[in-house]
Order: sequence, then C-alpha cells, then structure tokens
Amino acid sequence: MSTVAAISTPYGSGGIAVIRVSGEQAIPVVDSLFCGRVSLRDALPNTVHFGRIQRKNELLDEVLCSVFRAPHSFTGEDTVEIACHGSLYIQQEMLHWLIDAGCKAAEPGEFTRRAFLNGRMDLTQAEAVADLIAAQSKAEKDLALSQLRGSVSSELASLRERLLHFTSLVELELDFADHEELEFADRSELTDLACEIERKLSSLLASFRTGNAIRHGIPVAIVGAPNAGKSTLLNTLLGEQRAIVSDIQGTTRDTVEDTLVMEGILFRLIDTAGLRDTDDTLENMGIERSRKAALDAQIVIHLLDATNPKPLTIETNGTVMEVYNKCDLKSPNSNLQSSTSNLQPPLCISAKSGEMESLKRELVRLAQDSMQTSAVMLSNARHYEAVFCAHEAIVRVQEGLTTDLSGELLSLDLQDCLSALGEVTGQITNQDVLSNIFSKFCIGK
Amino acid sequence: MSTVAAISTPYGSGGIAVIRVSGEQAIPVVDSLFCGRVSLRDALPNTVHFGRIQRKNELLDEVLCSVFRAPHSFTGEDTVEIACHGSLYIQQEMLHWLIDAGCKAAEPGEFTRRAFLNGRMDLTQAEAVADLIAAQSKAEKDLALSQLRGSVSSELASLRERLLHFTSLVELELDFADHEELEFADRSELTDLACEIERKLSSLLASFRTGNAIRHGIPVAIVGAPNAGKSTLLNTLLGEQRAIVSDIQGTTRDTVEDTLVMEGILFRLIDTAGLRDTDDTLENMGIERSRKAALDAQIVIHLLDATNPKPLTIETNGTVMEVYNKCDLKSPNSNLQSSTSNLQPPLCISAKSGEMESLKRELVRLAQDSMQTSAVMLSNARHYEAVFCAHEAIVRVQEGLTTDLSGELLSLDLQDCLSALGEVTGQITNQDVLSNIFSKFCIGK
Repeated sequence: MSTVAAISTPYGSGGIAVIRVSGEQAIPVVDSLFCGRVSLRDALPNTVHFGRIQRKNELLDEVLCSVFRAPHSFTGEDTVEIACHGSLYIQQEMLHWLIDAGCKAAEPGEFTRRAFLNGRMDLTQAEAVADLIAAQSKAEKDLALSQLRGSVSSELASLRERLLHFTSLVELELDFADHEELEFADRSELTDLACEIERKLSSLLASFRTGNAIRHGIPVAIVGAPNAGKSTLLNTLLGEQRAIVSDIQGTTRDTVEDTLVMEGILFRLIDTAGLRDTDDTLENMGIERSRKAALDAQIVIHLLDATNPKPLTIETNGTVMEVYNKCDLKSPNSNLQSSTSNLQPPLCISAKSGEMESLKRELVRLAQDSMQTSAVMLSNARHYEAVFCAHEAIVRVQEGLTTDLSGELLSLDLQDCLSALGEVTGQITNQDVLSNIFSKFCIGK
Repeated sequence: MSTVAAISTPYGSGGIAVIRVSGEQAIPVVDSLFCGRVSLRDALPNTVHFGRIQRKNELLDEVLCSVFRAPHSFTGEDTVEIACHGSLYIQQEMLHWLIDAGCKAAEPGEFTRRAFLNGRMDLTQAEAVADLIAAQSKAEKDLALSQLRGSVSSELASLRERLLHFTSLVELELDFADHEELEFADRSELTDLACEIERKLSSLLASFRTGNAIRHGIPVAIVGAPNAGKSTLLNTLLGEQRAIVSDIQGTTRDTVEDTLVMEGILFRLIDTAGLRDTDDTLENMGIERSRKAALDAQIVIHLLDATNPKPLTIETNGTVMEVYNKCDLKSPNSNLQSSTSNLQPPLCISAKSGEMESLKRELVRLAQDSMQTSAVMLSNARHYEAVFCAHEAIVRVQEGLTTDLSGELLSLDLQDCLSALGEVTGQITNQDVLSNIFSKFCIGK
C-alpha cells in the first residue's frame, strides 16, 4: 500500500501541529527531509527525535518526530508523527514537501481504514474513532469509547459464532439430503438460540433511539401557545440571545435549534412557533413545523403561561412535561391538574428571572432514565440497519422452526442473519460500504 | 516552579489533539491518570507510550504519552505530551482532570517563557517562536526561523561582548582617577569599535521597515482618480469580491485591506477612495485616508484609466508604480511618459479581464529587491526600539570620543548602549517586559 500523509490536528494555527505519515516508506520518506542527531531509519520504535525538516538550502521548521514500527502503530504500518510549530503555512508546506518526497495525501479516515484493513480493529471500532472525535459530551464520549473497546462487536460476534455453528450443522444435513431422518442440528437447541438472539437484537434495536440521541443530542421540543415565553426559555437555558424575543405573537417562525450539555448529557433544544389558529400563511407554516418537532422529540416541554394558561393537545412519541412559566408573576393554582393524561407533575419556573433549576433537574432525570435501559447501545444508523435485517432474518428462522421448514430454506434465513451480523463488525463487507464509512471521517485520522 | 498544562494544538476538533504538561511534577501527575504497560515514571526519556487516561471508574480516552526529561525538553523541565483523540470534549476534560490532579492551567506563552527562564533560548528566540506560529508566508517563516536560530541575538551579542570589554577598561580607569594619565582603554580602538557598532545598528534599523513588512505584509496602496478601477483591481488580485464595485464615483469610502501571498511573500493590499476635489464631507474623509495610505505604503500602485488618464501627484515614502488599467478598451499612447519623476516604466493591465501578470511580476520583483538589503533583519517593534536607543547611545559615545569627554560620562553612554543591546536578547530585562511579550502568545506554546 502507498505511503500517505495528512495534517492530523484541528485546522488552524496553534502552538503545535501534528502531521502523520503512514506506510511502508514512512520512515525513509520523512528521514530524507529530516536532519537530527540520529537517522530515523536507525531509530528505535516508540522514540521521539528532535531535528530540522530541510531540503537543499531551505529550512522549513524544527520538529519532533515520533517513530512507530509495524505492527505496533495505530495503522499497523510504519508510522512517523511530525510535531511542528502550528503555523498554517508551515503545516501546509510540510504536507507539500512530504508529497514531493513520495507520499500521497491521505483521504478522510484513511489512517483508520488502514487500521481496519490491517486487522488492528473491526469496523464498529473504526466507526467509534470518528464518533470519539466528534464527541461533545461525557455520555457521547462514553458511548464511543465503549464501542471503540469492542462492546458492540463482542456482543454480536459471540451470537454470530454460535449461530454459525448451528448453520454449519444445518448445511451439513443438506449434504446428506437422501437421509431425510438425519438431523445434526438439534432443533430445540436451535430454537432456544434463535429465541435468545431475537431478544438480544430486539433490545439492541430499542437502544438505538437512546444511542442516537446521545450522539446527536436528546431532542427536546419547547411547545406552547404564543407568548408563553418559549424563546425566552430557550435563551435562558442556553445563556445567550439565540432566538429573537418580542411581545408580538408569532415572533418565532422557523424552529430554532441549539445544543446544551447538562450533567454530561447533550440536549438538542428546539424552540418552536406558538400554536394557535391563524390565517397567516407564513405563521401556519411555522406551526406545521412546531407539530412535527413535538412529534419527533424525545422530551416535549409543554410551556404554559401561568398568568393565562391555555392547555393544548400535543401529539408526540416522547414524554411530555407540563411547565408553567412566569411563576414570578402568578403562581399557578395549587389544585391545578396536569391537562393531559401524562403522569409528570407540572413544574413552575420563571424563564425571565432564570428560576428553572427544577426544569433542568427534570430534563437530566428523564434523559438518564432513558439511558439506563441498555448496557450495550447502538448509536450508528448503519449498525441499526444491519441489526434490523438480522432481526427480520432470525424471526423468519423462528417461524421456520415452528412450521418445520425445509433445511434448504432454513439455511437461507440463517445465512441472511449471519451476513447481516457480519456486516456490522466488518467480517462481511464490500468496498462501497467501506468508502462510505470512511468518507465521513476527518482527514488525518 | 509549578507544573502547568495546556492544549497545544489549534482550537477545534480533529484527528489528534496534544496536551502538554511541563514542570517538576509533570511525569507523576500524568502517571497518576495513566494506565499503560509501563509506568511513565520508569519511562526512558524521549519515548512514546500507549495507554488509557482514567480515574476511579471513568475512562477518558486512549492516548499516546511522550515523555521528556529535564533539561532535554522544549521548556528545559520534565514534560509529558499527551496525544489524545481530537474531540473538543475530550481535550477540555483532559485539561480539567490534569488540573484536578495538581496542574495549573498554563498562561499564554508559558511554555516558551519557561524555556527562556531555564536558559533554553534567549528573548529574541522566544519571540521568534510566536512569529513562527503566526507565519503565513515563506518569507515570514524564514525570518522567524532565522531569528529562532539566533541570527539577531548572535549579531548583537558579539558586538555587546566587545563593547563590554572596553567599558570595563574605561570603568577601571575611573578607579585610578588620581592618575589622570592612565588609559587602559585604547581610545583609537574604541573609536573603531564604536564606528563599527554604529554602522551595524544603522543597518539593522534600516532593515526593520522590510522585516516588519514581511511579518505584517508589504503594504501596497492602490491609488488613483475615481472609477480608475481600483476596487476591481483589488478584487481581481484577491480572486474574490472583497470590495464593493459600482460605476458610481466615490463607491469606496473606507480603505479596504486584505492580504495576498505571491511567490512566498505576504502583501497587504489597500484599496482606497478615488482622489478628486469634492465638497462631500464623507468622501473627503475617505480621500484623507487614501492620502495617508499612500504616504505609509511601501509600494503605491498609481492606477490610471487608459481611456481617460488623469495623472495625480502622489506623496509617499514608498515606490510608485504607474499602472494603466482598462487596456483592453484602449492601449495607452506608446509615447506616454511616466507622469512623475519616478523611474518605473508604466504597466498596462486589464483588471476586469484579469490581464495583470506584468503587475504581479513587478510587485514580486520590488518586494524581493527590498528584502535583499540585509542578511539579519529586525522584524519586531520591541527590538527596533531597543536598537534605536543603543544607536543613540553609541552616537553619543562617538561624539564623546572626538570631544575627549571625561571617562565618567563616556562610561554612562557606554552603559546605556550595553543595556539597550542586552534588552533585545533578554540579558537585561524586567518582569513587565516579559509579561508583555508572553501575553501575546497563544496558550499551549
């Protein structure tokens, strides 16, 4: 494989930047530009060397080069990491010099792709690297790190291995098709295993909603009548003037989104247009979006004006919290009942004066509850899709077992399930899938 | 000194981020959070170690730690560089964990400040580190790197040492004041040295204009009558619609600046308001700025409309280039003479159609010429100020020598010169100056 190079640190100027070079020629290529006390070719693995990057009469920078030797590197190949001064000019020039010296510019995710191809990690772990880099909160970091350490793979790999054993036995029966009575694969054991796999896959599928929310932020829609103080609530939670606030009904039109981390959990707050009957076309388009946001949200804050509460019916697949705002002006009737069948008791806040500790606590509590449902969580849409197919296949296997389906057909369903499970970890894969996965990476990783 | 930590790579998320920890406790502090195959305390200097950063039950990230031991590190202290996944969350959390474990957050430039205080570099070299990080062009990088490698210091330090020798002799004479005839310091040798020093300092002072221009961009003012196409020229050179262009006279009011790198040289292009007589107050304020920009520029492009040339008198301390624009519409008379006493021949371009290679070549040539005047260049205003004082003092010494000034007074002037030279390299310094220098650094360097 060719030798590739890329700037691996964030874009911009700073104290230090790191340029990573990986491949068979990594050490000689960098050494051809490096002038230090020792030659990098002679360097022991995992050592750091001070020197100059220069060619002909031009000095580019004074650098530190870390040398790693195959297979003991991130990619599994010989690797040199050049730490230079973090000037944008120097970083880019360094990359050009390396390319002139025979490197190729690395594509997005190419180092991780090589780590995968060289067997240093499976596909879910490679994907976890990208998630880890994008992590914005503790929950997200924990999720990616658990995946990087193989939680998803090991859960699926052990199921797959046991299923593979049975599948081989079923296929062996086919070779002895003349002897119909022959049954190598114990059908009742297989039924138990299929049942166990179906349960595990179901619970993994169920974990996706939460896993996905952790990655992208738990969607919290703020919904209510006009002038309930929805935009003020968003601004106060964020601590900035994100949404325009005025006394005029219908100030918010487009949904306004921003993220907020509380107790290590990423929330995606969505301020929406006030719900009311109106003939204004533009306003109705906004209201349409409000309803959609509420429907998709995991948590809906139904905000009511305590001085003039107008409870609304809100359709959603998530949990609704009734929240009374402007409680500094008027505390809501103590005998006030939740207007919906929802069991959450109403909360009292004042968005304007910043009194909203009870609301924050409740948001965190609801989010934490949803996260405790599953130890291993799916957070990746590609995994979800594959597990979904595997689940469909195993359900067909279960049906086949009860209806005494022929070995041939049973074996097809078993193969479908195996191949779907194998896709998650990359045991079964194709170039298109790989390209698609790694194209989403940043360059330099 | 306390142990400090900071994120040293550019701000943002990317493949890798580096957190640098320096000080007596750097190795034990990082080791207390590090879990790898070996303890960092036992690590050999200049080695890299893979492991996990964790505390209690929480895993933060998988990292590479590079260990450096005093005095063989950038700061001259024990140092650990932690290369982690470049998520913003992980970077910031890592810093928090290090601070919890006993580190202080490093102030801007603190690592370089320590390198200076520990004698790893002098002050001009420390300042060069900041310049290197900010470098945007080859010329700038070369200038900073030459300063980092001690060109300015060594030039001044050798002069200072020889002057110090003479000063000691002159001061020795004062101790034997009773013996008026005694002269340890050979006056004719001192005169020669003073003359040599004066010449060197003069040439350094002269180099500042160029050195400063390399750092901040060579100022090129585009000046001319309204509608000569000045803003179009700026936009075409930059390759973007930076300045507003219209057919209305007086479109440009404020000077519009942007930088451009050609052939490794940074230019600072300044588009100005068209010069004409007008009663419009706002326009006159713009014209005032145009004249100021021309005066201060190193190169002035005097832009003339080839279809209707109106030559103007332009006051400047720089070089004036006469440039005819709109030459696609009408080529200027071949017998056209340069309207000023300036020797540059007029150039013909078309800003609109992008025909301006001759102009670009000429700009680069003028810039390169100005750079070849001096091998060692001053590029820092602080150095300029100190060298200016040293120059004044050495001129006083020269005068004193011709007028046979008393040893006491001569010695005062010599001390002034020595102390001014010492300020440049940091041999003589005070806390305020240091704080001021390092506060301009980025954090993490």
